[in-house]
Formats: sequence, structure tokens, C-alpha cells
Amino acid sequence: MTQQTGTEQTGPSSRTADGELALELDRAHVFHSWSAQATLAPLAVAGGLGCEVWDFDGTTYLDFSSQLVNVNIGHRHPAVVAAIQEQADVLPTVAPANADLARGLAARAIVGHAPGGMSKVFFTNGGADANENALRMARLHTGRDKVLSTYRSYHGNTGAAIVATGDWRRIPNEYARGHVHFFGPYPYRSEFWSTSAEQETERALHHLERVIQAEGPGSIAAILLETVVGTAGVLVPPPGYLPGVREIADRYGIVLVLDEVMAGFGRAGSWFAFDRFDVRPDLITFAKGVNSGYVPVGGVILSDEIAATFDERVFPGGLTYSGHPLAMASIVAALAAMESEGIVANAARIGAEVLGPGLRDLAERHPMIGEVRGLGVFWALELVADRATREPVPAAVMGQLKSELMARRLLPFLAENRIHVVPPCVVTDDEVGRALAVYDEALSVVEAGL
Amino acid sequence: MTQQTGTEQTGPSSRTADGELALELDRAHVFHSWSAQATLAPLAVAGGLGCEVWDFDGTTYLDFSSQLVNVNIGHRHPAVVAAIQEQADVLPTVAPANADLARGLAARAIVGHAPGGMSKVFFTNGGADANENALRMARLHTGRDKVLSTYRSYHGNTGAAIVATGDWRRIPNEYARGHVHFFGPYPYRSEFWSTSAEQETERALHHLERVIQAEGPGSIAAILLETVVGTAGVLVPPPGYLPGVREIADRYGIVLVLDEVMAGFGRAGSWFAFDRFDVRPDLITFAKGVNSGYVPVGGVILSDEIAATFDERVFPGGLTYSGHPLAMASIVAALAAMESEGIVANAARIGAEVLGPGLRDLAERHPMIGEVRGLGVFWALELVADRATREPVPAAVMGQLKSELMARRLLPFLAENRIHVVPPCVVTDDEVGRALAVYDEALSVVEAGL
Ligand SMILES: Cc1ncc(COP(=O)(O)O)c(C=O)c1O
Ligand SMILES: Cc1ncc(COP(=O)(O)O)c(C=O)c1O
Repeated sequence: MTQQTGTEQTGPSSRTADGELALELDRAHVFHSWSAQATLAPLAVAGGLGCEVWDFDGTTYLDFSSQLVNVNIGHRHPAVVAAIQEQADVLPTVAPANADLARGLAARAIVGHAPGGMSKVFFTNGGADANENALRMARLHTGRDKVLSTYRSYHGNTGAAIVATGDWRRIPNEYARGHVHFFGPYPYRSEFWSTSAEQETERALHHLERVIQAEGPGSIAAILLETVVGTAGVLVPPPGYLPGVREIADRYGIVLVLDEVMAGFGRAGSWFAFDRFDVRPDLITFAKGVNSGYVPVGGVILSDEIAATFDERVFPGGLTYSGHPLAMASIVAALAAMESEGIVANAARIGAEVLGPGLRDLAERHPMIGEVRGLGVFWALELVADRATREPVPAAVMGQLKSELMARRLLPFLAENRIHVVPPCVVTDDEVGRALAVYDEALSVVEAGL
Repeated sequence: MTQQTGTEQTGPSSRTADGELALELDRAHVFHSWSAQATLAPLAVAGGLGCEVWDFDGTTYLDFSSQLVNVNIGHRHPAVVAAIQEQADVLPTVAPANADLARGLAARAIVGHAPGGMSKVFFTNGGADANENALRMARLHTGRDKVLSTYRSYHGNTGAAIVATGDWRRIPNEYARGHVHFFGPYPYRSEFWSTSAEQETERALHHLERVIQAEGPGSIAAILLETVVGTAGVLVPPPGYLPGVREIADRYGIVLVLDEVMAGFGRAGSWFAFDRFDVRPDLITFAKGVNSGYVPVGGVILSDEIAATFDERVFPGGLTYSGHPLAMASIVAALAAMESEGIVANAARIGAEVLGPGLRDLAERHPMIGEVRGLGVFWALELVADRATREPVPAAVMGQLKSELMARRLLPFLAENRIHVVPPCVVTDDEVGRALAVYDEALSVVEAGL
């Protein structure tokens, strides 16, 4: 089997015609997520390596988005690429009902990073279906229906296929009801009139417990939380919040599901983000960083107690590609490389010593930065029109900022009035330095124009 | 990059220790779909090629399941394997918002097989999220909520993550309501007291229209149908049914979604199963056969009319791995190989000339076979305790049959009281002959024991 290894494949170069074709086909045939289709102006990405991607003209960008905050190991990590190539030669796909060696190895590697007493993994295709299945497990385990989650959250885009299903598989899954939303902690924009992180924790826990009491504790199957809220703001939970939620969940017999899809596998400078918050979930959902998205995959790690519920009872959920060998091989390789290359430790060090201090330094010079928050390689700059009122900058400012950042060859991740600073976990001090200089310049240009 | 090309990887051989490890890790760490976990006895699959897979002892099985009726191109097709390996070297992953050349090429290849006036594809990770997004499109396009689907159907296992989501992405997606089920045609076990296929069509259409009228046509966004119902029975629609549904959908302004996840891309002996039934859908959902599951992927093909709804309006759906480059490269290669190697034509010929006649011949000799139905490489033998009453055989018979088939080195697909005969589309006359002999023997053994 010939591998294309010409330089036009492995490094930036000029392939303008291919770039034009990519854009033309994209406009003609590709329907895009979360967008009005007529307004799109995508960048055609030709390749990437580490923290960089390049277009078809050979222009290189520093990727401080990690794409969708998922390429934790960086682009085209050789060990993960090789593992995919080797698995493709052995067995690209197999049905979930069979046993697969790569799948067993991947599950063992994953639970190796989980707390004791969590030894089984259910694999899915991504984050949304990981959460779907975690909620299904929680509901069947508790015999209760309601799920509590926060207004500031993102857990995925699915929601109807099983209800549309006609056959027996629908019956135990027909939970077209029972979602309750509550407010989580967010000290910078408190919903609880608090004036300190300590007070925010205390009041957010009080609020959660009141919602539980008002809904009826006996009706609540699960509390579903992003350990660190991602797209909705990089909201780092204040000290004591997550242990407090754990205590409340225990008091009422509620399953605690921590969504580690974005926060897990290195992003927060630890294997799981909850490792840093003194809390133990009953179910963990993951995707993204587990294999840096090289092959679509996600999953649920189950406590032994919840797993045992389905020892004699059929678990009524499944999907064609559960435990897909190619995805499994990429997980095994990605986790091994992250361990042997100290990639999680790098993310922690970069956050504590380089990126965190650098962003705080930027905030001293840019009045537009209302707050800097984060950990590991998971940071947000909250941009405000006025530091006193904390009024968000208008959308037009964010559009301008995006142009200025792209013009300086940095791929940013922007959400509402925030810059999420989310490079791969392999980012170097030098790359952080270059990115900080770009943010600095772009902010200056935009501020000057106001 | 070294490829493992030793014979232990590419053909059956004895690797007993690896097989034991695969089973041990599976039992310790892998949580399985649709199962009681304590009752599992999976086969550890070591490799495969074409219509065969083998275990770690080197025992080879004829795969007449196509795993989950998805490995249409057969196991480890060299062109698809090579395409995955090459794409992994170029760019394994990229965010959906960027343009990607492989994605454009895959979308173009797919719409090349669709009817005119369907030029855009939204990519997902599998079949469930394809249906989720098709229903989202239909609901937003029509401004209506309800979805009609049949009791005998399977459309996927998701259903709650978006409702759990707190942020703005939930609001336009909160359809935790509005599913209505109706009966589709099934001449062998009619719900309409019909005595001929013609009457079944007529009455099934009357029933559907009555349900629509009773629900209120103005509230119905979509009718979601498997073109040929798969797991729930390989139910081939009787002549006139699908064109009749199309007419009813048009009369009431309802979107017709055809689920081609299992039936599409060769399975029915045509590119799309609906090509054989004189009907044109508004939305097509696909997965499985499009790349034979070598990389997890699915999607929705949109009519230009529905796509245009989202030209200026944001489509509120998306997922991290939408249009994943590795999946896209595998689609491009799989569709090209299916075309150049005449694989779809082979499926049609096998069905019409070899497999169909062979199964009908079996039915003549085995009173247990109540009905043979199917097309292409998509067949079911419905097994009955009594041909007159059509009473299904008990579950124990199916268990015994499974053992007899496995003992004769055939991987079967069994559902309820049926054997689904669903080999890869590349199956040869000789392989069909071998399989027919195995079914024949196994049926004889089981019948003799009754
Ligand atoms: C915290 C969180 N959960 C779930 C998801 C959904 O994952 P996916 O897009 O793979 O379905 C995301 C995606 O961004 C996420 O950030
Ligand atoms: C007709 C049909 N639709 C949808 C699905 C769901 O696909 P997936 O398992 O990839 O989610 C299946 C799976 O078997 C199917 O057969």
C-alpha cells in the first residue's frame, strides 16, 4: 500500500487549485452546522502538524482553537496516525456484539485514569450520544425520570430518533419529558447576588437544593454537569461547589453525571477535570480529547454500582459503531503518547506558569478584558464594553477581532463576547508567546478603533 | 511509518493468547449495547477479508450478517483501507466550520447517486443523529412539530442531550413531544385484514391518511420511513405503497424522510433502495453502507428546497465530528470502488439469480420457513411453528439455530423469529452456495429435534 508522503502532503505548500476545488465543493454540496448557509466563508484547511494548520496556499496558522477544543494531542501526532493506519490493515470495523482486542485495550486505558470502582466503558460516536446514554443509565438505575442540568451548558445536539422509533427499543427510552434547568455558579455574573467565590458556592448549592426539593427529590434521576463549563464560558467551578453537589446528590439518591467531553483528557491540565475539584462522579461522559478527534468516538465510564444494574437486565441502548476498532486503536495510541510524552503535565505547567500569567498580564494592559479565567489550556477572556458594568462587547467587535486574529495567522475560538484560549495540550512556551503577542496586537487595534 | 503487514495481521492464524486477552478485557471493561452484561459470550474477531472474518485461533467464518448489516463492500477492502491510511497522513481531523477537500469530494460523490434537485449533504456520526437532524430540518422547514413513523421500525438510540442542554441551542430544538406511530404494510402479518399485496397497499395508505386527518395535517412536519424496513423484519413495501405515501405527503405539505441507513448504498441491489420503488423523498438519511462502517459516519441529503430554508436562517444543529476527514476519505474510496467494481450490480444479480431463488428453494424443503422476502442482499426467512397459523417459532429455537449456524462457521443475523440473510454486496455465487448449504443443514438439525 503506497502512502502519500510527498511534501505537498506533509508540510505547507501551494496547491491553489485544490484549495479552490475544496471551497467550490464546500459551497455546492456541504451543509454546515450551526450556520446560515449563505453567509459562510470557511477557511480551507490543507494540513496540519502539532499546533499549526495550513491552507492550500501554504499559509500557516497557529491553532489556538484546537478546532472544536478537541485536538488535545495536536495535529497529526505520528503515533496516533500510525495506530490508525495499522488498525485499518488489521480490521477497520466490527460489530459491537463481538469482542475486539483494540476495544478492550482502549477501555482498560481509559478506566486506568478514572477513580477506583469505575471499571466499565460504554463507547459511543461522540459527546452527544455519550450524554444520551449516561442519562438512560441513570434513569434506569434510579427508576426516576427527571434530569437537572444548568442553563449555561452544552451537552450535544440529539433528541428525537428513539422517540420516532416504533419497535420495542422505544418503550424503555421514551423520556420525552423531565428536563429541569437551574443556575450554576458564575462569580463574574452571579445569579445569586454574591460578592465572593465563597458566597457564590454557598448560594449556588442552596439554589440547587431548593430546585431539587421543589421538583421532588424522588423524581430526579440525575444531575448532569460539565465539570468546567466549556463553550458556554469556561466557567471554573468555585472551591467547594462540586463536592457540595456530590453531597446533595448523595443525600437524595441522585446520580451525578460529569460531562468531561471538553474538559477531560488533558484540557484542564489533568486527566479528568474533576481530579482538580475533589469530587467523584457516578458516570463520566467523554469524547474529544480521548483521541483528539482523530476518529469519531465518545463514551460513558460507569461506576461499578450502576454497571451492575445491567448485569441481568438488558441495557436498552446501542449504536452500530459502538467500540469501533479504528477509534479504539486511536484511543490506545493517544493515551499512551499523552502519558509517555508528559502532555497532560505540559498542559498543567503551561496553564500555571505561562498562559495564565500571560493572559493576566494582557488584562492589565487591555481594559476590554473584564475577566481572565481558566486552568490548563482551557481559558477565557471575557470582553466588556465597560469594566464597571461588565456589559459585554457588541457582536461587531467580536467580528472585527476575529478578522484581526486571522490576519495575524491565529485560528481563534470565539463565543459570544469571549475569546476562548484553547490551544492543544502540546503547546510550547514559544507558541504561547507568539499567540499572546497576536492577541495583544489584535486587541490594541480593535480598542483603538472604538 | 511502518505498517504491520506480517501474515498474523492479514490472514487467519493462531494467536490464542491475544484472543484470551481480548475476551478477558471485554468482560472486565467493555459495556455492551442491547444486552444484559452478565450473559454475554462474544466471539473475539481477529481479522477479516471480503465476506469472511476469523477468530484468534484462525477459525474462519462466512459473514452473512455484514456485522450490523453495514459492511457492504466486504471486510478490509484495500482501496478503502488505503484511503483511510493516506488521509490519516494528510489531516486526520478538522472542525466542521472549515472547508475540507475530502468532505467536498464525499458530498459530491453522494449527491451523484441522489435524484436531481438534492445537492447538499449534512454529515453526522451515524444513523441515529442523521435521523435526529433530518427531523430537525423537517420541523423547522414546515414550522410543524409532529412526526409520523411506523411501529415496525428502527431509527436509532438518541433522545435527550439537546433537551438537557441549557444554552440557546436548546430553544429551537425542544421537540420533546409530537411522535405518532402508525402501521405500515406487512402482507404476511397484515394489520388491515388484507388478503393480497394490492389490498395491503390500498388499506395501509388509507390507514396512514386517516391517522394524518385525525392528528391534524397542519401539525405534521414529517413522515419518517425506512424504505425497506430492516431490523424489524426486512419488510419490502408492496407495489404502490411508497408512491402513495409520497402523494399523501404532498397533499398535506408533509416532508417525506426516507431512512436509507440500512437499505441504502447497495444493500437493496441499487444505490438507494427507493430507486426501486418509484418514489422521491425530500430528505434521505444514510450511514452504514456509504463507507461500510470503516469510519463512523452518517448524514442527511437535503432537497434544494429544504436546504434553501437555511440559507439566511441559522440551522440549529451540529456536532464536533460532522464531515470528519477520515470518514470522508473512506466514503470517496468506497463509492468509487463500488462503482468501478460493479458491486451494486453484483448485489442485484445475486439477489435476483442466486440468493433469492436459493432461499425459495430452501423454503420448499423446510416447513419451518413461513415466508421468504427480500431483494438484493437483503433477505429474511420468517420462521414459524405452523405454516397455517404463522405462529412464530419460540426463542429457544432461534438460540439453537444460532449455535448450529456458528458451529458450521457462518456468522448469522437473527432477529426475533427471523434469519436475516444479509451478506456483503461483494458476495460470490460460491459463497452464497456455501451459506445456503449451511442454512439447509442447520434448519434440518433444528427441525429434526422438534
Ligand atoms: C461539554 C460538551 N458536551 C457534549 C458535547 C457534544 O459533543 P459532540 O459534538 O461530539 O456530540 C460537547 C461539544 O462541544 C461539549 O463541549
Ligand atoms: C434503518 C436504520 N436507521 C437508523 C439506524 C441507527 O444507526 P446507528 O446505529 O448508526 O445510529 C439503524 C441502525 O441499525 C437502522 O438500521
